[in-house]
Amino acid sequence: MSDFVRIVEVGPRDGLQNEKTIIATADKIALIDRLSQTGLRSIEATSFVSPKWVPQLADAAEVFAGIQRKPGVGYPVLVPNEKGYERARAAGAEEVAVFTAASEAFNRHNINADIDESIQRFRPVLERARTDGVKVRGYVSTVLGCPYQGQVPLADVVRVARQLHELGCYEISLGDTIGVGTPHQARAMLQAVAGEVPLPALAVHFHDTYGQALANILACLESGVRVVDSAVSGTGGCPYAKGASGNVASEDVVYLLHGLGMATGIDLPLLSQTGQWLAQLLGRETGSKVGKAMASA
Amino acid sequence: MSDFVRIVEVGPRDGLQNEKTIIATADKIALIDRLSQTGLRSIEATSFVSPKWVPQLADAAEVFAGIQRKPGVGYPVLVPNEKGYERARAAGAEEVAVFTAASEAFNRHNINADIDESIQRFRPVLERARTDGVKVRGYVSTVLGCPYQGQVPLADVVRVARQLHELGCYEISLGDTIGVGTPHQARAMLQAVAGEVPLPALAVHFHDTYGQALANILACLESGVRVVDSAVSGTGGCPYAKGASGNVASEDVVYLLHGLGMATGIDLPLLSQTGQWLAQLLGRETGSKVGKAMASA
Repeated sequence: MSDFVRIVEVGPRDGLQNEKTIIATADKIALIDRLSQTGLRSIEATSFVSPKWVPQLADAAEVFAGIQRKPGVGYPVLVPNEKGYERARAAGAEEVAVFTAASEAFNRHNINADIDESIQRFRPVLERARTDGVKVRGYVSTVLGCPYQGQVPLADVVRVARQLHELGCYEISLGDTIGVGTPHQARAMLQAVAGEVPLPALAVHFHDTYGQALANILACLESGVRVVDSAVSGTGGCPYAKGASGNVASEDVVYLLHGLGMATGIDLPLLSQTGQWLAQLLGRETGSKVGKAMASA
Repeated sequence: MSDFVRIVEVGPRDGLQNEKTIIATADKIALIDRLSQTGLRSIEATSFVSPKWVPQLADAAEVFAGIQRKPGVGYPVLVPNEKGYERARAAGAEEVAVFTAASEAFNRHNINADIDESIQRFRPVLERARTDGVKVRGYVSTVLGCPYQGQVPLADVVRVARQLHELGCYEISLGDTIGVGTPHQARAMLQAVAGEVPLPALAVHFHDTYGQALANILACLESGVRVVDSAVSGTGGCPYAKGASGNVASEDVVYLLHGLGMATGIDLPLLSQTGQWLAQLLGRETGSKVGKAMASA
């Protein structure tokens, strides 16, 4: 497994959006600029969903305008619909991400639409992005379980991932939103999707709610995935399990990958320092075990 | 991988010995009695090393005398030498555990003996145990790295494990004492040892200092190991990295195993409640992510 793995750093978006402590705009900019110096190739910068839904990211345009975009680094931003796309583009975004869930119940509960309707809603985004030459990443959430319906049929995961790919998403990130999955289940899910979407177009996105994220990532790496989403300092928590752990910590993923002899291009000590700095801003302990261990060394 | 995995619960010994908050004897007894109700088959109850070295476990004899030993459950206790063996036997222990390190520097630093001398020191323990019909478990620490010498030659790990087995230990627990290992390294170590000691006589023992424990356990399960050491609530910390994580949490290991379709005989909700109870006693957050998630559910 001597190979390159691209980490998609989702801390500034998926991590922060579930943190209660409101971070100042200047600190969000500083976070992204620090991350840009670590060797990361992809940093999800913010979200252009309605500030009503995600107050933490109400300053998306200011954040995006304020960061120093480093050549060779992608800065996707989340957009929920055409209006969000327009705001993102006005702020200068050159890459966007769209999202839906593989669970019918999750979509109905969160956006009052079934899966097919949710995809119809961002179809115009994908059409405009194609015209504009904007890259689009697609998120499929609840791939290993749903807080509302429990089990999520594998066929639904495969169908949604295939549709996003057919609509033009260059990469599909498969998310265990509530962090309930275990390695063989994760591997089976990945392999099923890879039967219909080329493996190089797939990413995995684990939350560490039940502590299984690194084991799941290992299983998926062994099945050939080479793009992994994670959040520095393990930010995020879980809206469905108060007090639970958040996104898998980027530091812990990078430590795993380097230990497996895989390359990431990332300076782990620098990433770990950034995670410690962020944890202090958030007024809590880092969610990264590597971060804790390196801080004490 | 539909199979039975035996968890060796080391919280009352390896976990508590590195916790600063002194736990009352009655609470230690209650902890072990609670653990006995969860379906665990092996619970390391305490340590008969000198109280000078481990003040937390100075009440070993009282603890051992106080617990309700459940039929079918083993309660090994740690003994450093013949004197410790005698104290353990006087307290009623029917199974003991001896320990050494695969690192020359670690042994020299901790017990002022090289590896071979350290083995000579507990040779009388093994001889008496054989006569007495007492089972002996052997720990080999620093199998994936050492705080003093860094790398530990695989040949040393294999040699020490083989010697412990030849001397009569029925099971050898291979410990990543400082939690630095990653899955391919762990697997290579296990496979090397399994070349000289039968795999059913091997256990793995991971600390989660760098968050890699579950991924390492997964790799070792896939190589056939079926005995895993862990500590409820992830107690222990790391004496070589202040503030770092401790033993891998039993709750997280059991969640992994059940997710893989493996049997443990353990009631996970009951184990998780015990972990929460212990965390409260210690006045800190549980070190188990499953514990956190289940407590919020």
